[in-house]
Amino acid sequence: MIFILLYLAKKFRMKNKIKNKVKGSDILQLEVVAIGGYEEVGRNMTAVNVDGEIIIFDMGLRLDRVMIHEDSDVSKMHSLNLIEMGVIPDDTVMKNIEGEVKAIVVSHGHLDHIGAITKLAHRYNAPIIGTPYTLELVKREILSEKKFDVRNPLITLNAKETMDLTPNLSLEFIKITHSIPDAVLPVLHTPYGAIVYGNDFKFDNIPIVGEKPDYRAIKKVGKKGVICMISESTRVNFEGKTPSEGVAASLLKNDLLGTDNENNGVVITTFSSHIARIKSITEIAERMGRIPVLIGRSMAKYCGIAEDIGLVEFPKNTKMAGDPTSVDRIFHQVMKEGKEKYMLVVTGHQGEEGAVLSRMATNKTPFRFERHDQVVFSADVIPNPMNAAQRYMLEARLKLAGVRLFKGAHVSGHAAKEDHRDMIRWLNPEHIIPAHGDFNLTATYAKLAEEEGYRLGEDVHLLRNGQSLKFERII
Amino acid sequence: MIFILLYLAKKFRMKNKIKNKVKGSDILQLEVVAIGGYEEVGRNMTAVNVDGEIIIFDMGLRLDRVMIHEDSDVSKMHSLNLIEMGVIPDDTVMKNIEGEVKAIVVSHGHLDHIGAITKLAHRYNAPIIGTPYTLELVKREILSEKKFDVRNPLITLNAKETMDLTPNLSLEFIKITHSIPDAVLPVLHTPYGAIVYGNDFKFDNIPIVGEKPDYRAIKKVGKKGVICMISESTRVNFEGKTPSEGVAASLLKNDLLGTDNENNGVVITTFSSHIARIKSITEIAERMGRIPVLIGRSMAKYCGIAEDIGLVEFPKNTKMAGDPTSVDRIFHQVMKEGKEKYMLVVTGHQGEEGAVLSRMATNKTPFRFERHDQVVFSADVIPNPMNAAQRYMLEARLKLAGVRLFKGAHVSGHAAKEDHRDMIRWLNPEHIIPAHGDFNLTATYAKLAEEEGYRLGEDVHLLRNGQSLKFERII
Amino acid sequence: MIFILLYLAKKFRMKNKIKNKVKGSDILQLEVVAIGGYEEVGRNMTAVNVDGEIIIFDMGLRLDRVMIHEDSDVSKMHSLNLIEMGVIPDDTVMKNIEGEVKAIVVSHGHLDHIGAITKLAHRYNAPIIGTPYTLELVKREILSEKKFDVRNPLITLNAKETMDLTPNLSLEFIKITHSIPDAVLPVLHTPYGAIVYGNDFKFDNIPIVGEKPDYRAIKKVGKKGVICMISESTRVNFEGKTPSEGVAASLLKNDLLGTDNENNGVVITTFSSHIARIKSITEIAERMGRIPVLIGRSMAKYCGIAEDIGLVEFPKNTKMAGDPTSVDRIFHQVMKEGKEKYMLVVTGHQGEEGAVLSRMATNKTPFRFERHDQVVFSADVIPNPMNAAQRYMLEARLKLAGVRLFKGAHVSGHAAKEDHRDMIRWLNPEHIIPAHGDFNLTATYAKLAEEEGYRLGEDVHLLRNGQSLKFERII
Amino acid sequence: MIFILLYLAKKFRMKNKIKNKVKGSDILQLEVVAIGGYEEVGRNMTAVNVDGEIIIFDMGLRLDRVMIHEDSDVSKMHSLNLIEMGVIPDDTVMKNIEGEVKAIVVSHGHLDHIGAITKLAHRYNAPIIGTPYTLELVKREILSEKKFDVRNPLITLNAKETMDLTPNLSLEFIKITHSIPDAVLPVLHTPYGAIVYGNDFKFDNIPIVGEKPDYRAIKKVGKKGVICMISESTRVNFEGKTPSEGVAASLLKNDLLGTDNENNGVVITTFSSHIARIKSITEIAERMGRIPVLIGRSMAKYCGIAEDIGLVEFPKNTKMAGDPTSVDRIFHQVMKEGKEKYMLVVTGHQGEEGAVLSRMATNKTPFRFERHDQVVFSADVIPNPMNAAQRYMLEARLKLAGVRLFKGAHVSGHAAKEDHRDMIRWLNPEHIIPAHGDFNLTATYAKLAEEEGYRLGEDVHLLRNGQSLKFERII
Repeated sequence: MIFILLYLAKKFRMKNKIKNKVKGSDILQLEVVAIGGYEEVGRNMTAVNVDGEIIIFDMGLRLDRVMIHEDSDVSKMHSLNLIEMGVIPDDTVMKNIEGEVKAIVVSHGHLDHIGAITKLAHRYNAPIIGTPYTLELVKREILSEKKFDVRNPLITLNAKETMDLTPNLSLEFIKITHSIPDAVLPVLHTPYGAIVYGNDFKFDNIPIVGEKPDYRAIKKVGKKGVICMISESTRVNFEGKTPSEGVAASLLKNDLLGTDNENNGVVITTFSSHIARIKSITEIAERMGRIPVLIGRSMAKYCGIAEDIGLVEFPKNTKMAGDPTSVDRIFHQVMKEGKEKYMLVVTGHQGEEGAVLSRMATNKTPFRFERHDQVVFSADVIPNPMNAAQRYMLEARLKLAGVRLFKGAHVSGHAAKEDHRDMIRWLNPEHIIPAHGDFNLTATYAKLAEEEGYRLGEDVHLLRNGQSLKFERII
Repeated sequence: MIFILLYLAKKFRMKNKIKNKVKGSDILQLEVVAIGGYEEVGRNMTAVNVDGEIIIFDMGLRLDRVMIHEDSDVSKMHSLNLIEMGVIPDDTVMKNIEGEVKAIVVSHGHLDHIGAITKLAHRYNAPIIGTPYTLELVKREILSEKKFDVRNPLITLNAKETMDLTPNLSLEFIKITHSIPDAVLPVLHTPYGAIVYGNDFKFDNIPIVGEKPDYRAIKKVGKKGVICMISESTRVNFEGKTPSEGVAASLLKNDLLGTDNENNGVVITTFSSHIARIKSITEIAERMGRIPVLIGRSMAKYCGIAEDIGLVEFPKNTKMAGDPTSVDRIFHQVMKEGKEKYMLVVTGHQGEEGAVLSRMATNKTPFRFERHDQVVFSADVIPNPMNAAQRYMLEARLKLAGVRLFKGAHVSGHAAKEDHRDMIRWLNPEHIIPAHGDFNLTATYAKLAEEEGYRLGEDVHLLRNGQSLKFERII
Repeated sequence: MIFILLYLAKKFRMKNKIKNKVKGSDILQLEVVAIGGYEEVGRNMTAVNVDGEIIIFDMGLRLDRVMIHEDSDVSKMHSLNLIEMGVIPDDTVMKNIEGEVKAIVVSHGHLDHIGAITKLAHRYNAPIIGTPYTLELVKREILSEKKFDVRNPLITLNAKETMDLTPNLSLEFIKITHSIPDAVLPVLHTPYGAIVYGNDFKFDNIPIVGEKPDYRAIKKVGKKGVICMISESTRVNFEGKTPSEGVAASLLKNDLLGTDNENNGVVITTFSSHIARIKSITEIAERMGRIPVLIGRSMAKYCGIAEDIGLVEFPKNTKMAGDPTSVDRIFHQVMKEGKEKYMLVVTGHQGEEGAVLSRMATNKTPFRFERHDQVVFSADVIPNPMNAAQRYMLEARLKLAGVRLFKGAHVSGHAAKEDHRDMIRWLNPEHIIPAHGDFNLTATYAKLAEEEGYRLGEDVHLLRNGQSLKFERII
Repeated sequence: MIFILLYLAKKFRMKNKIKNKVKGSDILQLEVVAIGGYEEVGRNMTAVNVDGEIIIFDMGLRLDRVMIHEDSDVSKMHSLNLIEMGVIPDDTVMKNIEGEVKAIVVSHGHLDHIGAITKLAHRYNAPIIGTPYTLELVKREILSEKKFDVRNPLITLNAKETMDLTPNLSLEFIKITHSIPDAVLPVLHTPYGAIVYGNDFKFDNIPIVGEKPDYRAIKKVGKKGVICMISESTRVNFEGKTPSEGVAASLLKNDLLGTDNENNGVVITTFSSHIARIKSITEIAERMGRIPVLIGRSMAKYCGIAEDIGLVEFPKNTKMAGDPTSVDRIFHQVMKEGKEKYMLVVTGHQGEEGAVLSRMATNKTPFRFERHDQVVFSADVIPNPMNAAQRYMLEARLKLAGVRLFKGAHVSGHAAKEDHRDMIRWLNPEHIIPAHGDFNLTATYAKLAEEEGYRLGEDVHLLRNGQSLKFERII
C-alpha cells in the first residue's frame, strides 16, 4: 500500500492567459527539480523539464562546506566526493527525470552559481549559455580545473536578447542588476507560459556600471503569463528596499573624503567581482589625488576581464597586481614612495588567511601598517562563526597596529522584502518557488508571498534539495 | 483547466504494521485539518476526520492579538468578530469537511487550548472530553462567558485511561507533564493506526506535582503503529533537553534561601496555573518560617481548584486572596505585622497593568516596597515587544524603589529539541505535522524530523491554518 | 580624619602653549561641574567656573523619565519635582560653587539641551546666548510654560562669531553640523586656554541645509590650546564615521523613486526638527509630481520657524498643517482628491500614541490606509522598550492594513568613533570629559581617548552628575 | 606648570571604627596598585603597599592574547616579551612603588591568577602563600617552566586560618566558593583596617566539593572595618544570584538520566579544574551503571591532584588517562567493549584544536562517533569570536556525525549582581575597587556600588592597569 498526499487547495487562482496557451495539446508535463540551493545559501542548481526537454539553471559551489572539511583542494577533487561533502549540488537525482538536457543556463558569474560547472557540466551533452562576462569567468574556471575536462560549447547570449533552444522553448535574458556585472534574469518561454529564474537579483537604479534593470521587459513577461517563478530569498528578511550601489558610493566618499587621512595609508577591501564598487573606489582615489592599485589574484582576474571586454573603464593611472611577484613589487614601491600617494584596493574582506589584507596585517608583505592608517571594509561579514573569527583576528591585529577601521560602506546585491513584492506584483506568477536559502529564508519568502495572496503548499512551494514539483492537468 | 500539485516523494518509508492494519477495507479516508495554531503560538485547534467521524482537539485563544485591538472585552464578543481579529481559530473551514463531529478533546487547561470553547463549542453537537482539572477550568470559562451559552456535555477521562468514542475510534489519555497539572497526550486509535496529538508537553522526571510521563505507554503506542503525530514546536529551537521542574525548585531555593533577605519583604510572581511551581515556593516559605500568601484573582482560582480536587496540598498556613477586598485586607495585615513574616506569591509576572504586582509597584495597594525588598520573577518574559515594555516599566519602578530583582528561577513547560527527538524515536510516526508556532518554529521542527529520516512534503508536513492533509490509498 | 584621593598621574602631558598663557597670575581656578547628562542620554547641563565667573552650557530635558511617571504634564510642574523625578538637571549643586553665573549658552535647539530652560533659567541672573534658530525655539518653550516666568535676556550670537562675556572670558560659536539647523560648537576662551563644549555634533560635508563644519576654526582653536573638551558620546560605540545627510537623501530617493508606488499613498515620518531631512523629502516629492504636506503640531512649528528665518526654502507648493482643524482639513482633501497626488510628511516615527501617524493608523483622522500604501520611517527607533513597544504596535497595525514599510532611510546626527578621533586630534585638548551618555557610552569614549594617548583618571575623566573636576596649579 | 586633579568629594562617609584604628600614628600611607586585570578578564595582579610593606595578590595569565600572536610557546618566552604582548601583568610599574615585597598571595589555582608566577615571582624576594590545592598547582606550573627558575618559598595557609606577615600585617584566608576547590578570600589586616581581595568568588550553599562560604567570618571582618575591597566583576552584569553547583548537578541528571541513551556513547566535556562538576558527573555515571573515564592531560592533572590531597573521592571504578598512550589505550578499550558501558569525561569544551574532544570529532583517536551518541557540554562558550569559531567547527562536525548535543548543564563560578550586593552590605568597605574585567564590567560594578550609596571617584574607583590609588590623611 502506498499513500499519496494531496494538498487539496480550496481556491485556485485561475488565469485566462494560461488557459489559452494550451490550445491543441491535451497533456501538459512540466516539472521543476530543486537540485541545490534549496536548503542553503550556495550551490545553486535547478532543472526545468518541459515535455521531456530539460533546461538546467546554474551549477554552483557551497564554499562554507569546504571549511568544515580541512585541507581539501576542490580543484583536484571528484564530483562524487564533493557531492557527499555537500560542496556541489547532488545532480544524481537527474537520473530520475525523464528527458534530455538541452541547455545549461548561467545567470551570472558568482561561484555559487557557476563554480560546479567544472565538476558537473561534462556529464550533460548540452551547451552552456550565458552573458559575455559570465562566460569569460566560466572559461577561467574550466582552465583551472585539474580533475575533469569540460568541453561543453559556450554560447553567448546578451542581456535583452532571446534565443530559441528547441522548437518549443526559447530563452530570454532580461537585464537585471546584482553585485557583479552582466547579470541577467533568465526567462524560459514554454508553450504553457514562462518560467522565470530569479536567482539572484536586486533592483538598482544607480548601478554605477551597466544599465538599470529592464523593468519594461519584466512587466511584459508578467502580462504574457508566468507559470512559475524561482526566486532567491537570501535577503527577503530585510524590510524595505535594498539601497542602490549609488548609496555605497556616497558612503565610500563619506569615509574616504571626510576623514583626516592626508598623510596616512588608505586601504580598501571589497569583493573582487564587485566591479561597480571598485570603479567607485578608483574614482574617489582620483579625486583624492591618489593612485588606485588593485591588488590580489582574484582582484586582478575579475577587474582585468571586466576591462578587457569593455564593461568598465578605470582611471588611466590605475595599477593592477595579481601574481605574487607583482604584488610584492607594488608594495615595495608604495612603501618607498609614500603610502599617502596610493589607494590600495585589496582582497581579504573576510579576513581569509591567505588573502592580501591578512598577509599585510601579519607583515608577510613589504607593506607596514602604521598608526592612523585607514582601512575600509566595503563588504559585510558573511554570517558564519568561522568568518566572524577570521575577521575578528584581522581586525584585532589592525587595531593593535593603531589602524582606523571603517566598516559601513556597503550595500547588498540582493533584493529585500519590498523589492521582492514588486517583482511578484509585476510578474504575477501562477506559482512561486523560493530558493537560495535555508528554511528561515525560504519560509520568510513564503510569508511575503502569502501577503500577496499566495498560500503555502498551494501556489507557493517550499522544496528541499532533490524534490521536484510537477504540474499536471486535470481534464 | 486546473492544476494539481503532486509531491512525488522518491522514497516512501514503508511500515508493515500499517500495512496489516487495513485488512478488509479498501478505502481509507483520513484527514487532518489544521484550524488554528499552525501560523502562531496560540489559538490551537485541530480536527481529525476518520471515515466521516470527526474529532476536534483543543479550542484556544491567541491573547497577543487582543492587545493590538484596544478596548476589547473578549467575554462579550461574538465568534465571528474574534475570528476576524485572529483571536480564536477560524473554524468556518469545518463546513468543507464532510462528516460528523463526535467529540471535542482538550489536552490541558491553558487558555491557548481551552479559551475558545465558550465561543465555538456550542456549534458542535458533541461532548467535551478532558481530565478533571482541565474540565474544572473549562467550567469556569463557561461560567464567565457573557455572549454564548455552552451546553455541551463534559466527560471526564483520567490520564492512563481509554474510552471508546465510536465503534471505530477510541481515545487514550497518556500521562504527560507540562506547566499545568493533569496534562495528557491524547491518542486517537483508528482502524488505520494511531493519531497522536502532542500539543503541549515536556518530559519531566521530577514534576513536583503529579507523576512522571508514562514513557511505557508512549512506546507501546509507537510499537502498535502511529499514522500521524501532531506535535507542538514552541521550544524546538532550543538545543538539548528542557530542565525538569525540580531544577526550578533548586533555583528558587538558591535565590530565596541564599540571599540576605531576613528583614525584608519577599515577593514572587509566577504563572497562576503553574501549581507545581507554586507548591515549591510555598514549601520554601515554610522552610524560611514565612507564611505563604497566594494573591490575585487567577492565582486563587487555579490554586483553589487544584487543592479542591486533591491535586496538591499546600502548607497548612498558606493563605489565599482572590477578590479585591481580601487582597486589600491581606496587604494591610502584611504591612502591619511585618513583611518579614510573609512570602507573597502574586500575579503579574509580565508586568500586566491590572495585575497585582504592577498595582503593588504603583502603590495602588496598601503594600509599600522598600529598599532591599526582594522580588523574584519565576517566569520568562513572553517574547513580544508589548510584554517587554510592560515588564520594563514594572522593573524600572521596582528598581527606583530599591528593590532587588531575581529573574532566573524558571524552566519551560515545553519540550526542547532532544525531547522531541526522543518522542519521534519512540512513536516512530508515519507522518508528522508540527504545530503551535510560526514558520520559524514549525520549520525548525521539520529540520529536526529530517535529521531523523523524514523529508519535508513527504512525511513531515508544514500546514497553514485552514489547510488539511489527506491520506488516501493508491491501488 | 578625612581621606583625600589623589590620582597621581605618572606622566603628565606638558604643553608649552598653556604654560605661556598663565603669565602674571599665580593662582589658577578652573572647575568643570557636571550637572546633567553625565549618567544618561538627556537633560544636558554643564557649568564652567573660571576664577569665579560661571558659564552654564545647556539646560535640557530627559524625556524617557516622564514616561515612567504616568500622567505628568511637564509644563505645569515645579522644578524640584522634576529634579526629583530625574526629568531635568539637578542644579542645586550650583549652591556649592562659588562664583557668579555670567551666561547661559545653548548649543542647539533640541529639547535635551534647551527643554529645562523654562524650569531653571529664571534662577540665574544671566542672559541666554544662542544662534537665531535655537533662540526662536527657546522663545516658543518659554511661551508654552505654565509654571514659571522666564525673563532672562536672549542674546543672539551667529555661528562663526565671537563675543566677550566678561573682560576675561569670550565665547566663540564654531559652525558645526547636527540633526537640527544652526547648531554650533561653543568655545569658551579663558586666560588659561579654551574650553570646548562639544555636545552634540557630527562632521557632515553634505549637510543639505546650512554649511559644512568650520574645520579651519576647530583646528585653529586646537593650535591655540584647549585646556578641556566636554564631548558627547552617544554614538562613540559605532565604528567608523557617521554618514552624511546626503546619504540619507540618497536612501530616501532609493525608497521613494524606486518602488512601484504610483497609484498608492506615500507617507513619511521623521524628526520634526530635522529640517534638512524634510527638505530632501519635499524635493523628492517635487520630482515625483506629488504635493508635499507637512502635518503635525511640532512639524509645523519647527519647519515654520526654519522657513520664517530663512534657513530653508521648501518647494512652493508645500503645505503645512499644524493645528487639529487644518490637519483634518488636509486629510479630507487628500482622501477626496486622491492620495497619489500627495506626499504626507507626518509626526509619530516612534509610534507615539497622540502623534499623527498613530492616529492615522487607528483611523482617528479622515485618512484611510489601503493595501500597498507606502510608509517610510526616516528615523531610528530610540532604544528603549517603551518606544519599541509603541513602534511595534504601530507597525503591526500598518501591516494588518497591508501597508508597505520602509525603515532604513536614516543617518544619525551624532559623531561616530572615527569622527571623535579626528576631533581629538584636531583640538588636542589637555583634558577630556565625555558627556551625554551612561557609563557604557562615556567609558567607550574614554577607551577611544586612551587609544589617542590619554589615560583614565589622568587626562580623560568620567564624571557623574553633581561631581566637578577642579584644575589647580602646583608650585 | 603641573596640574593635579582632585576629586573633591562632597560628602565623605565617616566611620568611627577607622578613626579609632589610627591612634598614635600621624601618617597613614596606604596604596593599592592595579597591575593587571583592570582592563580585561585575565592576568590578575594587584599590589597593596602599607607603610612600605608590600603584599602582592595573584600573578595570572591572559590566554586570549596568546591566540592573536600565533605560534608562541609561552613556557619558553621571556617576561618582557609576554608583557609587551599583554599576556602577563606589566609589573614594571612596581619600580615606582617605594617599599619591600613581603609576600605573594594567591587566591585560587586558575591560570588567570597563578599562570604568571613562573615569569614574575623570581623577581621578588618573597614567599608565595596559598591553600594546599592552589600551591600544588603552582608547583606544577614551576616544573613545566622552561625559561625561568622560580625558587620562592611556598607557604601553605589553609582556609579559615590567619598568619602574621610582618609585625603590622596579618593575612586571613576566609573560606569561599568558586569553580575550583580550595579557593579563599584573602584578607589583609592592617593597622588602618582590612583590605579584602575578592577576586574571584561566588556564594554557593551546595558546593558539592568542600564547604560553604564562611559567611560568619565575612561579616566579622565587615564589622571590624574594611578600608578597601578589591572585587572581581566578571559576572556583575547578570541580575540576580548565581545558581549553586547543586543546580548544575540537577541539570546534568536531567540531561543524562532523562534522555534515551542506553545503547549509545555518552561523552561529557567540562573544565578540568572544576572538580565539583566532575564529581557530580562521575556519580551520575555510577547511577547509570557506566564506568566514568577522565580523559586528557589537564583532566588527569587537576583531578589527580585533588584526589591525592584528599579533596575529593571519585567512584572506585573511575579511570583516568592523561598521557597520549593511555588515552589511546582507553579509547581502544571503549570501542571494543562497547561505548554503552562507559561515560567519557574529556577536555575540549571550547573546541580547542588539540584537546581530546576535537580530536575525537576528527577521528584522530580510536573513538568513532555514531548516530545518536550524546555529547554534553557542561561549560559556557567563552565569549570571544575565536572560541565561538572553534566551538562552531566542533559542533558542526559532531552534528554531521549524527551526535545529539546538550549544552545547558552549567552554572558559573562567579558572583552575580545580588551576590555582590550582599558582599558589599556585609563588608561595608570604606572604598571599593572593581577588578577582573573591561570597562563595561567594572563600570557595571560601579553602578551597583552607587545603588548601595557609593559614588564613582569618591569611594568606588575605576583604575586602569598601572594606576594606583593612594589614601592619605588630611590634618
